Order: sequence, then structure tokens, then C-alpha cells
Amino acid sequence: MTDIQPIARPSGRAADQVREVRLETHVSKYAEGSCLAKFGDTHVLCTASVEDRVPGWMKGGGRGWVTAEYGMLPRATDQRTDREAARGKQTGRTQEIQRLIGRALRAVTDMATLGELQIRIDCDVLQADGGTRTAAITGGYVALALAIRHLREIGALKADPLKEPVAAISCGLWRGLPVLDLDYAEDSSAQADANFVLTASGGIVEVQGTAEQDPFSQVQFLDLLALAHKGTQELVAAQRAALAG
Amino acid sequence: MTDIQPIARPSGRAADQVREVRLETHVSKYAEGSCLAKFGDTHVLCTASVEDRVPGWMKGGGRGWVTAEYGMLPRATDQRTDREAARGKQTGRTQEIQRLIGRALRAVTDMATLGELQIRIDCDVLQADGGTRTAAITGGYVALALAIRHLREIGALKADPLKEPVAAISCGLWRGLPVLDLDYAEDSSAQADANFVLTASGGIVEVQGTAEQDPFSQVQFLDLLALAHKGTQELVAAQRAALAG
Amino acid sequence: MTDIQPIARPSGRAADQVREVRLETHVSKYAEGSCLAKFGDTHVLCTASVEDRVPGWMKGGGRGWVTAEYGMLPRATDQRTDREAARGKQTGRTQEIQRLIGRALRAVTDMATLGELQIRIDCDVLQADGGTRTAAITGGYVALALAIRHLREIGALKADPLKEPVAAISCGLWRGLPVLDLDYAEDSSAQADANFVLTASGGIVEVQGTAEQDPFSQVQFLDLLALAHKGTQELVAAQRAALAG
Amino acid sequence: MTDIQPIARPSGRAADQVREVRLETHVSKYAEGSCLAKFGDTHVLCTASVEDRVPGWMKGGGRGWVTAEYGMLPRATDQRTDREAARGKQTGRTQEIQRLIGRALRAVTDMATLGELQIRIDCDVLQADGGTRTAAITGGYVALALAIRHLREIGALKADPLKEPVAAISCGLWRGLPVLDLDYAEDSSAQADANFVLTASGGIVEVQGTAEQDPFSQVQFLDLLALAHKGTQELVAAQRAALAG
Amino acid sequence: MTDIQPIARPSGRAADQVREVRLETHVSKYAEGSCLAKFGDTHVLCTASVEDRVPGWMKGGGRGWVTAEYGMLPRATDQRTDREAARGKQTGRTQEIQRLIGRALRAVTDMATLGELQIRIDCDVLQADGGTRTAAITGGYVALALAIRHLREIGALKADPLKEPVAAISCGLWRGLPVLDLDYAEDSSAQADANFVLTASGGIVEVQGTAEQDPFSQVQFLDLLALAHKGTQELVAAQRAALAG
Amino acid sequence: MTDIQPIARPSGRAADQVREVRLETHVSKYAEGSCLAKFGDTHVLCTASVEDRVPGWMKGGGRGWVTAEYGMLPRATDQRTDREAARGKQTGRTQEIQRLIGRALRAVTDMATLGELQIRIDCDVLQADGGTRTAAITGGYVALALAIRHLREIGALKADPLKEPVAAISCGLWRGLPVLDLDYAEDSSAQADANFVLTASGGIVEVQGTAEQDPFSQVQFLDLLALAHKGTQELVAAQRAALAG
Repeated sequence: MTDIQPIARPSGRAADQVREVRLETHVSKYAEGSCLAKFGDTHVLCTASVEDRVPGWMKGGGRGWVTAEYGMLPRATDQRTDREAARGKQTGRTQEIQRLIGRALRAVTDMATLGELQIRIDCDVLQADGGTRTAAITGGYVALALAIRHLREIGALKADPLKEPVAAISCGLWRGLPVLDLDYAEDSSAQADANFVLTASGGIVEVQGTAEQDPFSQVQFLDLLALAHKGTQELVAAQRAALAG
Repeated sequence: MTDIQPIARPSGRAADQVREVRLETHVSKYAEGSCLAKFGDTHVLCTASVEDRVPGWMKGGGRGWVTAEYGMLPRATDQRTDREAARGKQTGRTQEIQRLIGRALRAVTDMATLGELQIRIDCDVLQADGGTRTAAITGGYVALALAIRHLREIGALKADPLKEPVAAISCGLWRGLPVLDLDYAEDSSAQADANFVLTASGGIVEVQGTAEQDPFSQVQFLDLLALAHKGTQELVAAQRAALAG
Repeated sequence: MTDIQPIARPSGRAADQVREVRLETHVSKYAEGSCLAKFGDTHVLCTASVEDRVPGWMKGGGRGWVTAEYGMLPRATDQRTDREAARGKQTGRTQEIQRLIGRALRAVTDMATLGELQIRIDCDVLQADGGTRTAAITGGYVALALAIRHLREIGALKADPLKEPVAAISCGLWRGLPVLDLDYAEDSSAQADANFVLTASGGIVEVQGTAEQDPFSQVQFLDLLALAHKGTQELVAAQRAALAG
Repeated sequence: MTDIQPIARPSGRAADQVREVRLETHVSKYAEGSCLAKFGDTHVLCTASVEDRVPGWMKGGGRGWVTAEYGMLPRATDQRTDREAARGKQTGRTQEIQRLIGRALRAVTDMATLGELQIRIDCDVLQADGGTRTAAITGGYVALALAIRHLREIGALKADPLKEPVAAISCGLWRGLPVLDLDYAEDSSAQADANFVLTASGGIVEVQGTAEQDPFSQVQFLDLLALAHKGTQELVAAQRAALAG
Repeated sequence: MTDIQPIARPSGRAADQVREVRLETHVSKYAEGSCLAKFGDTHVLCTASVEDRVPGWMKGGGRGWVTAEYGMLPRATDQRTDREAARGKQTGRTQEIQRLIGRALRAVTDMATLGELQIRIDCDVLQADGGTRTAAITGGYVALALAIRHLREIGALKADPLKEPVAAISCGLWRGLPVLDLDYAEDSSAQADANFVLTASGGIVEVQGTAEQDPFSQVQFLDLLALAHKGTQELVAAQRAALAG
Repeated sequence: MTDIQPIARPSGRAADQVREVRLETHVSKYAEGSCLAKFGDTHVLCTASVEDRVPGWMKGGGRGWVTAEYGMLPRATDQRTDREAARGKQTGRTQEIQRLIGRALRAVTDMATLGELQIRIDCDVLQADGGTRTAAITGGYVALALAIRHLREIGALKADPLKEPVAAISCGLWRGLPVLDLDYAEDSSAQADANFVLTASGGIVEVQGTAEQDPFSQVQFLDLLALAHKGTQELVAAQRAALAG
């Protein structure tokens, strides 16, 4: 990795410093698993709902499914956005994010062990200050793990279908330097922005990098990946603490 | 009012006892006013967003507008419900409730004093255990009052357009006896269900009563109204405390 | 009740005077029951359609269902309104009204006696001069009763599932005084507006009262309720005459 | 024309006999022009609404526009059909018919004489027994003519933009023989079905012929056209009587 | 037929001259039948997709179904039009055309011989210079015939359900004279426009004629029909050549 | 990069071999720029439409905009998919892809040089055999460049807003080995799948990598990136040849 300068990011954090992360569990009276994921001022409520039927195209195959939906409260942001239910359709951004969350969680779930159950993860952004999709994946994993623990406790699952924790973090190039976990102000002025979904053992589940201004280089990309490894290790530690608590 | 027996309601509360009410203010980093209204296990996040333009049909009239939107997170309830944004339309129930909230708040707002501003109240149910619309109105008033205080502090409003507090509570007939502030279990088994929107001075802003089973009598209706007066007085006290805090 | 002054309402009617009501039956060649309900210049065509299957969630329970849909022709009103089918969705107002009609008619129907049949009441406003929802409920009951009579005549029903007639009327405060059965001009300038759904025996099925300007008092509300009792008695008499005719 | 046999049509009418036609005018309290067109048991309520603005693409061109919308009440038919407003979209059939009505009426309107006004014709089928589109055009012309008469009476139009009456009728091949003005039973069993929109002077405005079973010949088509000429002459006479009445 | 003058049409073609027609087959790697129909600069890609289930209302009847869908690429035209998928609904014009294509192809298909199969014809306009619906029908027939040949080759069909070829062409009155196969420039300035769907043996399947300006006469209409017979004979020859090739 | 074995890919191509690529230009009579991009059996028709107005939020800023829409014909694929226009909404996949295409093309366009023009790229998949989004970006660039050349030729643009060519290619891990430009069969059985959008000078514009089965490593990711560099160099050469042709 190239040398990280102690530059003055808008947030005042060190270049490789994640925001204060809190993963509050059991925040829903009803959901089989739940986690309120806070990455600084980004707050995402994640619930896991267990259903005993899988989508039609999977019936009878003995395998389960994990899927996700994403939403944002209208005034989660500085400027109020229209309510998607009132507009009558979800934006492309919403659909892109919820597809990403679903893929990330499925990547660490053994569907044969899960059996013909569907677990639906709802990620609703109560407050948004950048990085909502990464908070949703990180908190969504905790909600999923709690729902699976519940299924094991009531005897509905014999074995644990989760292979290992998965977490996500954003990185970006800000005035040419790689920084970790961008908040909204940083994200708006970054030259490049990448989201990484990594497993506890360091495997890459998903990479999405976009040059907002000039294209970036392979070296820069590897710097971002190194930051992401550091960040997700910290997030996995927080997930483990939350699940142990 | 007929004599209220200390019957054993499912909730164990006295017939005229409101659930524990908490009105937490300043819960949103961005909204001009916000309140998380908790009526027992019913939690509604209310935000007030100020816009400097009114709907098209009001332009140039010098008067303001207050409107509301209502939503419920998919797993706010015991059984997950479909996300309205995914289904592509709001249910009739949602539309009915958000129209009610808007009317209730407009009833205590002097639109000429507000001037050509629109305040949009978003009421999002994070957890639902009955009475979400009454919690939304009660918390929505607090969010509205905070937004107006903010407008006065920044000099955008000379006078206070709010005439008096407004609050709402549900009442019902449970095994023939009038009870106050029904939770979900009580509501599901009630014979009749009524929602009252009352002002601090006891004026009736809105009444909605429905016989779920047999029709009810005028005497029974007056019992419910008396309970509602008691309940909304307590809610108004909580609103004042929250706004003073 | 407070003393009703012989004030000059816009309509010129006495304060407690209902518009001329005509309930014309058998107006549809096809529907199992039909009624064209005319409250003055408000004309609502009500048809009852019998279906031998209930909604999915009721199947196999041995109970029936009554539901309603409401619509208004684009030029039923003074100013043409957009066609809901062309706009691609029903307004909140439409949904609110059709839910109300359905609840009102279900309140007087014994669903076990009806058995696994669904009766769908379509209420289409051909001309609107205020009070369309109350005309729809009053005429919808007649259409429903005719459809049930037809089912009994063809032997599909052994017993009568209708418990008693139900009718609806609006009342309001106009310049401070309670008046019965508001037409559009009166409704537009009323301080308060309430719709009452009452049974022949005087039971309250539904109450919806809204303060359009200042909140109203319990005494005023009781005045409106007394007017509603008088008005619905007259409507029930008209229903009985129509069904006897 | 080939020789018309006195065959026994399902309706019992002579092959060249139109159903009883009634064109009732001034049936709407509000519309600038209105006509309830009855072709036997087919009843279509036609209203004409004048708007003082034309569609955006026509603004400033000094020319007017006539357009039409079509709808059918859910229980206008023997089997109830879903309400288009509830389904959230108009069927292809509805759109096809309303486009046809609009073209037919525009064909006899001089848009320069009309000036920058739009007249919107709403055709709502209260009861359907075949031939709803032809009744809609025939009645829609009367509503349009009444609206134009109203505009002339109030001085909003100096000259008459209507060039001549237009009417429409269906014809078909039933068991190989040409018949005029099919009702629903006849239409369902016809081999071919054609709708003709003709002017008072016999000009062809629109022809739509469809072979439901085997293709038909030019000779057969000319037989249908001859019947249509006879039928529309009778309809034009009825229009003139209605407008004179 | 009246005498056809060698007038100078905008296209420079003789009055009874069809554009250069090319029917390219096997243009899709996947579809059971496919044809790229080119009428001059109008290019329509037609594919036939075989499904082994019929619509619900036909199940168990032993009969098949042929249906069509129509679409136009946004920049198929000189001015880009909005993408229907992005707008969220199909225009009335699209629905009208796809219903016409379906009727035309069903008219030459024996549904009992087809058996319980559905063949879906997709007609997508890659480039539009007038006459897209007639090119779609003409090319759609070729795609359908190829799909049926494929079904016979794999043994899924014992007999040929196609009764005879069907083709379509437009005609119009241009400065008072009948012309064949209008391109977009001619269509825009025509006084009348008619589409004819005729079988190889000259039977009329569908006729749609519209007076764009003044009504036209029976004699004019017969002139158009005569042109259509000439044109569709040429198209049928092209279809046969394409299917033989 | 790890050593690439000459494994037997399903397509029989070498691991680092791109499919036969053809970029056919000027395929649309109307569009300002057009390119039919063929990557083997994947055929995407790309058109560029110039509009002289930018989206509302950009007006008056002196900067231009490039956006993209994506669609797939129903029978572009082996199994027919529902038409998005008929279903009434675009899938999440469609929206994700069209957002990607737009970002990729904007990354190489200087919006200040473009000035207040919008160029809309429509990418319609005529036939799909994997890699449709990469073909769309690669062909979309050619259509965009041709539209800009046209604008320069007619004097609407003084300078060239395009900074350099951009192209896209997919890579994947197939049985553990990195392969370039996956077709549909390969994509369906790949362990990981990544799409790279790279500039002619090798800059990274967009990276999207997804583990379909097990997570992949940084080393594997770098292998894919190296393949992508090779592949996009070849695509850029094809773009330059097409534009020179």
C-alpha cells in the first residue's frame, strides 16, 4: 500500500479510520433477528423475517433463500426525498442496493443447510450520512445470524448454515489519497468511490468501484482494497461482539 | 359516564389507563423538527420538513399548508407485510391514515400566520402494537411545533401559527366495557373502536368510530368520548413536557 | 338537542330536512340487485353482484363477505375531474369511501348465514351534489337486500343474513347551527361535517366527524347525532318502501 | 346489395332493423352538453366538458381540439368485470374505443372555427348489450352539439364549428347474412363484425371490419356498408330530433 | 377501379407500387421462428415463441392460441419517443396494433389443429418509416409459419394448422388519388388512410379505414381495396419465397 | 498474473480470447449516431439521440449530460422473458445496467465542452448470449462519438468533449481459472464474474466483481483485471477502426 498521509479529511478522521460503529441487537419486538447498525450518523434498522416457503422457482429443491429489501425514510437525508411508496415505484438506486445486500448475504449462507426456508432482510435507513449500503450489509448479517440462532434454538435448524461473517465498507479517493468509510460530505467530493464486501477470512464477495471524476489506476485500487480489509476486520469484530453480547 | 369496572384487560391496564408514553425529541439530525413517539410498544418516528413552496393551487394566496405522509416498516408488525414501495402503491388504509394526520394538524394551525410555507410531517412506524395513527398525530404535533420554533428562531416566522396542542387517542368497547388506548391484542378483539383527535382545550377535531361487531349506542359512545378526554389531557401534558425539555 | 332555528340554509331547506330521496330499484338488467339512489341532485347507481367465491383468506371457513367499490364519473361534478382509470390509480378519498361502504354493509350482514358467497356492491356516482357516500350506503343496502332476496328466491340461501336495515346521512355545522343532509354548497362552507351510519334500530355503526374550521364541542356533536337519527329513520322508511314496491 | 332474407335473428328484429333508439338530452346538471344514448339495452351516458385550454402541443395555434374518454361500469355487463381504476390501467379495448370516438367527432369539427378550446367527451357505459362504441359516438355527437350551442348562446363562439352530424352503427354477418345493429348475443355468434362511422351526407369517416371466423368477401363487405348507410340515416334523424326537442 | 394517374408521390413510386420488400428469415438464434420484415426503411423484427401452455381461460379445451406483442425502439423514429418500459405503460396505439396483429394471425390458424399450444409473436420495430403494423403482420406470418414448421419437424404437430397465408398493406388517398403502401411522409399528408389484412385467396380479414380530413366515398374506398388486393398478392409471393428459401 | 492454462472453456476459446467483435456503424436512418455491437451472438443496437435541453436540475449551468437506457427484446434470450412495457416496470437488473452505461460514458465526456446538450444513448439487445452490458458500453461509445462528430460537422460543437475511448469487458473464474469475455453458458457456470470499464489509456472507470459461489482472492481479482486490460485494448482498437471506417 502507498503511504497514507495524515490528511485533513472533512470528517477529521484518520485516512484509515472507520466511524464509530454500534450494532444494537434485539431492537425489534417481532422480528426473528434484528440489528440497528450505526456507522456514525448513518443509522440502518435491519430485521430478519423467517418464512417457511421459498420463491416458486425453488420449491421442492430442498434449498433455502436469503433476500433483502432496502428503503430510506423520506427525511433520512438533509433534503427530504419523495417517499417511494407515494411515487409508486422504487428508484434504480434502491433496487441496485437491495440486490447487492441479498447477494452479499447469500454468499455466506449454505442454502442446503438452511433447507426450504426464506429469510428476508429488511434494511430501512432511518438516518443517512453516507455508507448506507455498507451499514445495511454489516447489520443485515447480524440480523440474519440472530434469526438463524433463533431457528436453531427452537429446533427448526439442526446445523448452522452460515459459513462465516460478511461485512462491507466503502473507500474512496479524496484529493488523491485513499480514505476509509466515507461520510456523505466526503462521498460527495470524492474522486472515486468503491464498496467492498469481504468475508471474515478476507475473501472478496463483491467489489464495486466507480470513478466519479478521472479514472483511477490499479495501484490506487489496491490501496482502497487494503483499506477495506482493515475496515471489514474491525466490522467483523464488532459483529462478533454484538452476537456475543 | 357509566361506571368503569376494574376489568382484566388483555394488557392488564386499568380501563382508563394510557400506555407508558414517551415523546423523544430531536431524534433526527436533519429534520427541522422531530419526535419519536412511543405509546408502549408502538413506536412512530415523526419528522417535520419545511419547504418554501406550497402546492400549486395555493400559490400567491399568502397562506401555508401542513400535510402528512404515513408509512410502516415491513416488519413493524408481528407478521411481515409487503413493502408498499415494492408493491407500487399505498394501501387504502395508509392513505386514510395520512389524510387524517394532515387534517388533525391543520386544524390547529393558522395558515395565514404560517404564510407561504409548507410543512410536511412524515410519520413512519418502526414498531406497531396498535394505535399507530394516534401516536402519529400526537408525535406529529411535537415535530410540527419544533419546526415552527426553529422557523421563529431563525426569523422566518414572526408569530406562532399554532393555536393550541392537538393529540389523539383510541378507545374501544372490550367485552362491553369502555377502555382507553387499545393495544393490538385489545384492538383485534374489541367490539367497537374509535379514534378521537382532541385539542388541549377539549375541542373535537375529528371523531372516527366503527362498530366491529354489533352497533353501539349513544351512551356507549359518550363513555368513549369521556375516556378520550382524559387520555388526550395526559398526552397534551406529555407534549408540553417534551417541548419544554 | 339545542333549539334549531329556521335559518336560511343555502338550500332553503329546514335545518332538519332531508333532500327529496328516491330509491329506484331494478335499474340494471344484469345485476342481482340494483338501486339508483337519488338524494336531491346526487345520483348514485348501486349494483350488487353475487360471486360464488370468497377472498382467498376466507376460503373454507363457511362465512361470506360483502365488499364495495366506489367511483365517480368524470363530469359528475361541476368541474370535471380526471378519470381514475386514466390516471392509473384511485385517490385516497375513493379508497376511504369504498372502505366505509363495505364496513357499513358488513355490519348488518350475518356472514355465517350468508355462507361462502361474496357480494360486491358497486357504487358509481352519476351526479354529485354532496353526500355521495351516504347515498351510496343507503342505496347500497337496497341493492344488497335485493340480491339476497334473489338468492333466496332461487334457493341459494335458506335464511336471511340481513339483520336490519342500515342507512347513512351527513350533518354539519353551518354558521354555528346544526343542519341535516348537506348539499355541495353547504358542505363547502360548513364549519364541521359528520357522516353517520345508523341502523334501523338506532345503533351506531360508524361515525366520522371532522372540524373543517374550529373544533366543535360535545354538545354540538350530540346535536348532529340527533339530526342523524331523524334523517336515517326517514331513509330507512324509504328503503322499506323501495323494497316493498 | 344482395337480397336480405327475413331470417330469424336472435333478437327477432328484421335484418335491416335498428334497435329502439332514444337520445335523451340535458341529463347532466353540470355538463355543458349531455346525452344518454340508448340503443335497446345498451345505455351510454355522454357528457361534453368545455375547457379553455388545449393540449400543450397545440398552444398558440388558434385551433381547438375534441377528445373522448370511454369507460364501462363494472356491472354494466352480464358478468361483472374488474374496475379499471382499481386495476390501475385501462384495457387495450378501452383505449381503442376512446381513440375511435375522438377521431369520429374531430372529423366533423372545424378546429379553426372552434378556436383554442378543448371539448372533452366522456362516454360511460351504464349498461352494455352490444354496440357500446356506436352508441357512444352517436350520443357523443349530440352532447358535443349541445355544448357548442351553449358556447354560441353565451357568445363564446361566433360560428358553428360542426360541419354535419356523424353517427355510427355496427353490422355483421350472422349465419352468412348481413344484419344491422348487433346486440351482444348476435355479436358473440357473428362471423364478421364491422363498425361504420358515417356522416349525414353519407361520407365514410371510419370503417373497422373484422372477420371473427372465416374471411369475408368484397360483396359481403358492400352489403354491410349498405346496411350501415340505412342505419346511420335513421340515427342522424334521431340526433336531429333530439337537438330540436 | 378509377383510373390511377402516374402522379408524383412524395416517394416517387408509382401509385400502385409497393416499397422494396425483404423478408429475412432465421434472424434469431433462439426463436422457433423469426423474420426481419423490411418494407423500404421500415424494419420490423418478428419472432415466434412456442409455449406449451395456453391462457387460463382456455385450459383443457384442446385448442391453441396465437397472440402478439408490439413495440418500437425509442429511436426507431425521426424524433426519439419515450421508452414505454420507462414510462410504465404501453400507449393506446401500441395496444391497438398488437391486438390487430393477433387477430390477423389467428384468422388463418386452425386452433383445434394447433392443440394446446400458445405461439407468441413479438414484433419489434427497429426502424419506422410508415406501415409498421402491416410489416409486422406480414413478417409475423412468416415467423409463425417457421415456428409451425419447426413443431412439425420435431413431431410436436401432426398437421398444419395454417389455412393460408395472410398479409397486410396500407393504402391512402393522397391529394385525392389512391396510392399503395404509404411511407411516413405520405402518411402524414394523406387525406385518408386504410389498412387491409387480406388472405392469399383474397378474403378480407380486417379493414381499418380512417378519414384524416374529409370523409371519403364508397368509390374511393373500393379503389383502396383494389390496390390492397394487388399489394397483398405481391406480399404473399414474397412470403412464399422467404419460406421456400 | 498467474499462469493461464489452455483449458477447454465451454466456448472453446483461449482463456484470454475475446469473441469475434463487430461494430457496425450508421445502422439507423434517424439517429445522430448509431452502432450495432456484436460480441459473438450478443447483438446490441446502440443509438445516440441529441436533445438541445438538459435535465431540469442542470439548466443554465452551461454543462451537458449523457445518459443511457437499456432494454432487451422479449425473445433476445433462449427462454422468452416478459416485455417490460407490458409488465409496466423495468426490472432492477435493467435499471442497474442503464445506470452503469450512463456513468461509463459520462466518465470520458467533458460536460463543459459539450455545453447544454443532452445525448441519450439507447442500448437495445436484439440477441443475448452473455455480456450485453459490456457490448452496450463498447457500442454506446461508438454511437456517442458519431453523434459528437455529427455535432461538430454541423457546427454545433467547437471542440471535442470526448477525452478518450472507453470500453467494457467481462471476465470470470471458470473452474478456478480466469477467462475473458464470458458467453451465457460460461457465465452461468462461473464461480465469479466481473465487469470492467476501462479507458484506452488503461484507467479504471468502473469495476464490478461478484463471487457467485465462493469468495475470491486479491490475486484472482488481479488476474481478472489483467485479462480485462488485454480485452479492452482490443475493443478500443475495434472502436477506432469502426470510427475510422
